[in-house]
Amino acid sequence: MSSSSVDPADPVFRLHAGGKMAVASTVPLTSREDLSLAYTPGVARVCEAIAADPALVDDYTWVSHTVAVVTDGSAVLGLGNIGPRAAMPVMEGKAVLFKQFGGVDAVPICLDTQDTDEIVAAVTALAPSFGGINLEDISAPRCFEIERRLDEALGIPVFHDDQHGTAIVVLAALRNAARLLNRKLGDLRVAVSGAGAAGIAVTKMLIAGGVNPDDVVVCDSRGIIGRDRTDLTATKAELAAITNAAGRRGDITEALRDADVLIGVSGGQIPEAAVAGMASGGIVFALANPTPEVHPEVAARHVEVVATGRSDYPNQINNVLAFPGVFRGALDARATRITENMKVAAADAIAGVVSETLTADAIVPSPLDPRVAPAVAEAVAEAARVDGVARA
Amino acid sequence: MSSSSVDPADPVFRLHAGGKMAVASTVPLTSREDLSLAYTPGVARVCEAIAADPALVDDYTWVSHTVAVVTDGSAVLGLGNIGPRAAMPVMEGKAVLFKQFGGVDAVPICLDTQDTDEIVAAVTALAPSFGGINLEDISAPRCFEIERRLDEALGIPVFHDDQHGTAIVVLAALRNAARLLNRKLGDLRVAVSGAGAAGIAVTKMLIAGGVNPDDVVVCDSRGIIGRDRTDLTATKAELAAITNAAGRRGDITEALRDADVLIGVSGGQIPEAAVAGMASGGIVFALANPTPEVHPEVAARHVEVVATGRSDYPNQINNVLAFPGVFRGALDARATRITENMKVAAADAIAGVVSETLTADAIVPSPLDPRVAPAVAEAVAEAARVDGVARA
Repeated sequence: MSSSSVDPADPVFRLHAGGKMAVASTVPLTSREDLSLAYTPGVARVCEAIAADPALVDDYTWVSHTVAVVTDGSAVLGLGNIGPRAAMPVMEGKAVLFKQFGGVDAVPICLDTQDTDEIVAAVTALAPSFGGINLEDISAPRCFEIERRLDEALGIPVFHDDQHGTAIVVLAALRNAARLLNRKLGDLRVAVSGAGAAGIAVTKMLIAGGVNPDDVVVCDSRGIIGRDRTDLTATKAELAAITNAAGRRGDITEALRDADVLIGVSGGQIPEAAVAGMASGGIVFALANPTPEVHPEVAARHVEVVATGRSDYPNQINNVLAFPGVFRGALDARATRITENMKVAAADAIAGVVSETLTADAIVPSPLDPRVAPAVAEAVAEAARVDGVARA
Repeated sequence: MSSSSVDPADPVFRLHAGGKMAVASTVPLTSREDLSLAYTPGVARVCEAIAADPALVDDYTWVSHTVAVVTDGSAVLGLGNIGPRAAMPVMEGKAVLFKQFGGVDAVPICLDTQDTDEIVAAVTALAPSFGGINLEDISAPRCFEIERRLDEALGIPVFHDDQHGTAIVVLAALRNAARLLNRKLGDLRVAVSGAGAAGIAVTKMLIAGGVNPDDVVVCDSRGIIGRDRTDLTATKAELAAITNAAGRRGDITEALRDADVLIGVSGGQIPEAAVAGMASGGIVFALANPTPEVHPEVAARHVEVVATGRSDYPNQINNVLAFPGVFRGALDARATRITENMKVAAADAIAGVVSETLTADAIVPSPLDPRVAPAVAEAVAEAARVDGVARA
């Protein structure tokens, strides 16, 4: 971690003074009559009604429009394992973005444990308080098991944004980049650099969205992942089984040879020579923040479409395009979980917002585009109904 | 549980539609510049500062003005063990009262477990997310152990409102009733009917406030608690050791013979004949809701001052007089816990608001009196500093 000092006059610290969020009452509380409706004795009748019919909790409490933003502070932004307290500003930021873009009431929950069993137990215990669980900044490989166990245990949507939020926006961007270049997803040769939580989720999402798994290669820090590798975690072995049909071996330069698409989700650096080896008419998404795997201006010398995670270059791949609408839609449908189809639908909806106005510098909407979250929400809710996981 | 039906046009259900609370952003989020300050990349610097100096979490997040309102739904109002979902309307009500009267941002957390160890583990895990823990509607005797273990484990205030909120307001009311009748607390013979969570806390608080423990008798459903009883729980045995110095035995009628004060926190009924046996110039607080242990009009035939838990009679003993100010004061002082002196200070502050305008029908302020919470907060924060538990 870099040394840091606090300058209270600095705009960032000035904005963060006292935090970024508050709770508000949505009912009047100024008369005895108000109190007797919102609290005792009136509230008892609402409690009794829910005790008799638990589904009424969705109608008569705030649960059905809330999400817990849960972290253990183990993998926060690019800062690493800074713990639950130092993670809070990010979780508050996420919560206020949920509200601003999705109208979702989100509560940051920073857990004082990094033990998988304890995290699962704590989130399971508090689950009745929320309509959904957004997992955030939990390090791999624990994040996979935590999400899987919670998804199995709880009857509400569980979504690890670092995996699926990123994957959804990458699929949206790739759809539009392919459309712009008159290519089909199923014909693209794709190299994914990075096999952490985001890399694995992106790979699965692209395949769910139509990319041919045979034509995908994924690289970790030791090179191309293939069935010959004996050093793979369970999750990477899964990838090896479905990707890289040709059994290619080697480093990122080898992976990029004649590739149409590079997706960087590694945080490492990729040399220009490797990018130069890509097929003509290529696509580079270099998503590491704040330093992309390859500088966008360098990438632009060799490919047609470039996207990054940064706000100061065109085509920002920003999760805020996905998570507010994904949860808004899941909550609107009272979905019991988030399916692959709901994620693909979210990606298609994001892409659709700008599909009629595509340029190489605008393959995804602006993170501030107010059309995005409603479009995503509608598509996600509809997919939930199609998949039979909706209760409304 | 009584059978219940939902009439959406009923004012109580109409008010509860969609719940009673929301989350709000306190920062602007409408431009790219806003996003870069409140979220990435700006937020990373705040995270780094807190990682380097964890105390900064109080300055730059919402933690220092938040409280979790935690229940397991095991003892909700007079409804009993209705579970976490059916408890939510009460917890939301509590949360909005926290905001309205104390400016405290409270989040309802309804836990899907009634196991003591699991509750302690879950609350310990989520504690970094909040500035204090308000335990609510957790049944005895688990509530005692849960509060004690959390108070020991966490460096933030933990407060079981059903115990201490009630006890604080009872002490406030008794102070003013005694003042009105020109009596000293140390001279009053007190009978407490009910040895559940509230009864035990009230008894301890009255003693802390100046009532002579020798002159207190506590009754449970089997009668007066004394050292001769062989059927006592650990908590009741504690009471037996410090109260009832005369070793009195018998039922509530015997307990009330020549008593100056009856505090009913039992939910049972007390016959008028028993109240008639009290000393002249007496005081009755019949706090069971919705049916007081003795009807206030019946009690008034025999004693000088009557209070209940009901809003439709004078002298409502309402916890809302205590908890918003108690937590506001504890948070303002950044107290690490809530001490006995802080509770006594809260009681004195509540009493003080109306001490100059005392009548037998106004021994406590109205629950809506805006002077109460600030007075309580100031007194509690000062007591925290005196007791050496304040960090600010």
